[in-house]
Amino acid sequence: MSTQSDLAETSRLEAFSDGVFAIAITLLVLELRSPELEEGERLWPALLHEWPQFAAYLTSFAILGIMWVNHHSMFRQIQRADRGLMFLNLLLLLWVTLLPFPTSMFAEHLEDHSINANVAAAVYSANLTLAAIAFSAIWWHVLRKHLVEHDMDRAQMRKSLIRYSFGTVIYGACIGVSFVSAQLTLLLVFLLAVYYAFEQVRTRGGTA
Amino acid sequence: MSTQSDLAETSRLEAFSDGVFAIAITLLVLELRSPELEEGERLWPALLHEWPQFAAYLTSFAILGIMWVNHHSMFRQIQRADRGLMFLNLLLLLWVTLLPFPTSMFAEHLEDHSINANVAAAVYSANLTLAAIAFSAIWWHVLRKHLVEHDMDRAQMRKSLIRYSFGTVIYGACIGVSFVSAQLTLLLVFLLAVYYAFEQVRTRGGTA
Amino acid sequence: MSTQSDLAETSRLEAFSDGVFAIAITLLVLELRSPELEEGERLWPALLHEWPQFAAYLTSFAILGIMWVNHHSMFRQIQRADRGLMFLNLLLLLWVTLLPFPTSMFAEHLEDHSINANVAAAVYSANLTLAAIAFSAIWWHVLRKHLVEHDMDRAQMRKSLIRYSFGTVIYGACIGVSFVSAQLTLLLVFLLAVYYAFEQVRTRGGTA
Amino acid sequence: MSTQSDLAETSRLEAFSDGVFAIAITLLVLELRSPELEEGERLWPALLHEWPQFAAYLTSFAILGIMWVNHHSMFRQIQRADRGLMFLNLLLLLWVTLLPFPTSMFAEHLEDHSINANVAAAVYSANLTLAAIAFSAIWWHVLRKHLVEHDMDRAQMRKSLIRYSFGTVIYGACIGVSFVSAQLTLLLVFLLAVYYAFEQVRTRGGTA
Repeated sequence: MSTQSDLAETSRLEAFSDGVFAIAITLLVLELRSPELEEGERLWPALLHEWPQFAAYLTSFAILGIMWVNHHSMFRQIQRADRGLMFLNLLLLLWVTLLPFPTSMFAEHLEDHSINANVAAAVYSANLTLAAIAFSAIWWHVLRKHLVEHDMDRAQMRKSLIRYSFGTVIYGACIGVSFVSAQLTLLLVFLLAVYYAFEQVRTRGGTA
Repeated sequence: MSTQSDLAETSRLEAFSDGVFAIAITLLVLELRSPELEEGERLWPALLHEWPQFAAYLTSFAILGIMWVNHHSMFRQIQRADRGLMFLNLLLLLWVTLLPFPTSMFAEHLEDHSINANVAAAVYSANLTLAAIAFSAIWWHVLRKHLVEHDMDRAQMRKSLIRYSFGTVIYGACIGVSFVSAQLTLLLVFLLAVYYAFEQVRTRGGTA
Repeated sequence: MSTQSDLAETSRLEAFSDGVFAIAITLLVLELRSPELEEGERLWPALLHEWPQFAAYLTSFAILGIMWVNHHSMFRQIQRADRGLMFLNLLLLLWVTLLPFPTSMFAEHLEDHSINANVAAAVYSANLTLAAIAFSAIWWHVLRKHLVEHDMDRAQMRKSLIRYSFGTVIYGACIGVSFVSAQLTLLLVFLLAVYYAFEQVRTRGGTA
Repeated sequence: MSTQSDLAETSRLEAFSDGVFAIAITLLVLELRSPELEEGERLWPALLHEWPQFAAYLTSFAILGIMWVNHHSMFRQIQRADRGLMFLNLLLLLWVTLLPFPTSMFAEHLEDHSINANVAAAVYSANLTLAAIAFSAIWWHVLRKHLVEHDMDRAQMRKSLIRYSFGTVIYGACIGVSFVSAQLTLLLVFLLAVYYAFEQVRTRGGTA
């Protein structure tokens, strides 16, 4: 029987992904720097002045956390892993591991009064969009190759594909918003993460 | 049967949390810097002079270690995971991953002869308090949603809730102590961690 | 029966290796630095100017990802682990954990108009070659000690050994190419990673 | 039955320890810095000049690798975990996670022509000694509390205790050697790691 070893393969894929998510979410803290004070300067206002760092940290933490929860939910439905799935999953992990970089750059330029703030916001949003595209690609591949549990009809498949593709549109739109306002982009991404968290909790609570 | 997959979900949640705890506890070392010596300066006294770094490292290591042990004990009693549990657990992990930042800031300002030492101590204590609140919230949620083993009567539930909420009060009090003395705060937090470790060992030894 | 505990041993070996791969692949991001801008300088061109950082990041991510997939495939065929296998695996992990260092050095010197670019490329290629040698050594050891599933004839064994040794030759050749052009070396390594990924997907799709 | 859940506890303890070992061994690379070159300076000799960094990296990698293998072997014999074992294991992990710090300091001062080289070597050796003491303490606790498989007679227990305590003596002696020569200390520690690796492989090959 191949079932046993296929399940094992999925579980090692999940373990590796969990590891990458856990490390990426924890590495975010390395971008937080204690403010460098001048003689006689007070710590508390200097810390408050660093708010973009904390806002960006919190937002990226929330996004990676929700991505992990979704990755978890998605893989619970996946029965078998093929090499295609492994490489699409690596593509997703590429954008996951990259996120601390645009997060730090976004925080650094959030209050710039120049186009740089918008560019940093757009790069951040582009990273999220690319992660969302990888998510959709995984699900599309999984459906096409029948790697999921078999009790899914055509309508359910389409519905789930639309649901997993939703992030692509949202985050793609954030790239545009970036050129309106960097701070609005950060707020929007954060609110989306919060909304998404609660929406998921509610949905599950209602159906299960 | 849903039991099988629910247990699987709890185990992946634990694995992810273990990863985050393991990384956060190991990243603490990145805040330790070899002293920069001037020509002819001796390493040993320079190293001793850095004692706040080591004291803060040791304290945060002890706290994260004990948190992990408690997380472990708590999740051994949890049978099923819902999305609410996953998000409350992420909230706990947010404070766990953040800890290296206030640890480093606390060490840096521990010997300041200004309010900055107190502020750094208070921020550190606030981080611990927020983690303790998340811990209580997880247990409260777990009891309310009956996600634990079913052989727990009302009195036991209340007792366990009080026990898990104890840290909130203790660490909350440390925020106040911070404004008396930063060094006393660090000592207190460390002694609490040591006491808690031994108290746990003794309790278990007595009952099991 | 020893089978149970031997399988357990292999699984902990895999879990440890997964951890190291996951961390090494995620630490790569720490080498990416937000460009330091002068007054009035624009972020976007400064970011584009940093392309060697991103190219090296992407290439090392792809290589570590494919190595992980191959490690995974290899260990699925390994039934038992002895101490020799554990130490050869540690040797492989040595080169895996080292990779962020030559990656960063390669990116830093990629555009140097001096021998330094070639040296950095050669060191990078040498790291990959040493990893490939460790890979072959693991497989050679595994075959010699009969640690694999027993349904493999002599021809299959030789064929698999050649297949796993292929990387040694390829990456070894890249050391030579380094002294022709550093940029060509990076391109070559990246293309090899991409080719290897697709070739693997196709092969599996055809046979399974 | 308590067996099931006790085994689960050991496995989560092992998973957490594996995570910490994997992260500590991978973080070592962050201490390696690409040499900063002056205008026209060549990379290769600058890299060779950094040999203490690489020697210290290799030595610490070998030690952590062997510690992990020994941890693995030890825990395969442990059937149940109590809170005492969890805290002694945390004590071991404290010294494991700390190691990158004295490693980096050792490398930095290895070629100093002053007492600083000896102090750095002694601190490094002390870290290893403390880890070895924690190892012995774990095994002593495990024997005293009968947490191992039951088919061990008194003589075997004493023999195993002596074997696990060997490292304490060896690394303790290295603290003394540190004040003779820092470079000799590094060589000795490295050779011990290599010897230990091969000795283990041979022993197992002979008995199993």
